[in-house]
Amino acid sequence: MISVILLGTGNVSTHLLNAFNSADNVRITQVYGRNESALKRIAKDIPYTRNLEDLKKADVYILAISDDQISTVANHIQANSGLVVHTSGTQPITALKNHIRRGIFYPLQTFSSGAKIDFSKIPICIEATSEKDYELLEKLAKTISKNAYRLDSEKRKKLHLAAVFVNNFSNHLYHLGEEICLANDLPFEILYPLIEETALKIQTTRPIDAQTGPARRNDQHTINQQLKQLTGVPLELYSLFTASIKKNYE
Amino acid sequence: MISVILLGTGNVSTHLLNAFNSADNVRITQVYGRNESALKRIAKDIPYTRNLEDLKKADVYILAISDDQISTVANHIQANSGLVVHTSGTQPITALKNHIRRGIFYPLQTFSSGAKIDFSKIPICIEATSEKDYELLEKLAKTISKNAYRLDSEKRKKLHLAAVFVNNFSNHLYHLGEEICLANDLPFEILYPLIEETALKIQTTRPIDAQTGPARRNDQHTINQQLKQLTGVPLELYSLFTASIKKNYE
Repeated sequence: MISVILLGTGNVSTHLLNAFNSADNVRITQVYGRNESALKRIAKDIPYTRNLEDLKKADVYILAISDDQISTVANHIQANSGLVVHTSGTQPITALKNHIRRGIFYPLQTFSSGAKIDFSKIPICIEATSEKDYELLEKLAKTISKNAYRLDSEKRKKLHLAAVFVNNFSNHLYHLGEEICLANDLPFEILYPLIEETALKIQTTRPIDAQTGPARRNDQHTINQQLKQLTGVPLELYSLFTASIKKNYE
Repeated sequence: MISVILLGTGNVSTHLLNAFNSADNVRITQVYGRNESALKRIAKDIPYTRNLEDLKKADVYILAISDDQISTVANHIQANSGLVVHTSGTQPITALKNHIRRGIFYPLQTFSSGAKIDFSKIPICIEATSEKDYELLEKLAKTISKNAYRLDSEKRKKLHLAAVFVNNFSNHLYHLGEEICLANDLPFEILYPLIEETALKIQTTRPIDAQTGPARRNDQHTINQQLKQLTGVPLELYSLFTASIKKNYE
């Protein structure tokens, strides 16, 4: 049984709490947060505290808090010889440098409040400073997910950068697609099956082979027609994507 | 029973043929194409021809061919008082102007050879010049899909433009994500669950509300760190997306 103290009351913390609560061989013994109503809402039956000095003893302390809080909180906690980890994609392991036993437990997913998440497929990226701690984190990851990956801070940073492209930027393209629909009295739902298939297709076909559309076909007539319908950022993005896609298939 | 003649041997034609073949109340009576081996492969038991003058009589003639061929082929066929439609997202209905009974049957999806497609969820966008022909196309669409939409040529063009953003450009972002992974010895598969969840999330949360990431948080430190890791098109795209996302949440 691995005992865990969760620090944070945001989306990552809430989803981790729910996942660990349904898992075997792990027990959340305490939750820390600053906001009492958030604590009550997410902790339910689990003891919680708003005071960092009241942290109990646990095998692993998970800091699921915003990037800019990690060092401050890490500097204020007594880990009682436990392992201290954070869940950030971008912060280095050295953000926890005042703890001898430190590590990373980064679940690579987009977490929203409310949305149900199946943790079993979520990749959990792990780093530690000793093999023993790595094994502990791997064991912890395996209680909720089938996919644990060992990544050092440098690689995790690159992975987070790739994630910004495929997640944050794709989502913004969906937003722009919705804007075009709204402006033309088209239901955005009409695009759901296309968006879904596009995202699933790359699991069987490499994106470079799955590419379709006017830029891929070098269909300059359609490209010119579409450019005429756009202004502002969508126009600039259209031109940049079109040039970049064309270059791949020259 | 609606009788259909399919013109074309590409991905759209192949997927339509398979869908109609498994459907009730519709029969493909002939397939036309220029390439004999492609015809043999896709037509199987259905009669086929390479000669436009040998087209039989049918209720609907579906031109599932490339945009630049539509007018030429339409001008060369005798539709025997049948309804002539094309499957393009961008070409107007007037591309078929030498046929009195003309229409559009545009399945909004990304079709690849090989990939199995569940047609039942694919939106089929329909246009016709008479109510009777519209009803015929709607009946035809309903044999393979639950989602038929009535869209005129102008709206279909806008929908296709939105599709370019959410499909073609998202796929290119996946390609750039894979490039970052490859350059850093990271398995691209690690991003599959994130890509999938991002695409599915917008069915329950509007993209503007689902947006996460450094630009959304206005986390300039992470943005600067990430910009330093990029060159060329990815750098330009990163800057443009970041500015555009920021603007939405100012």
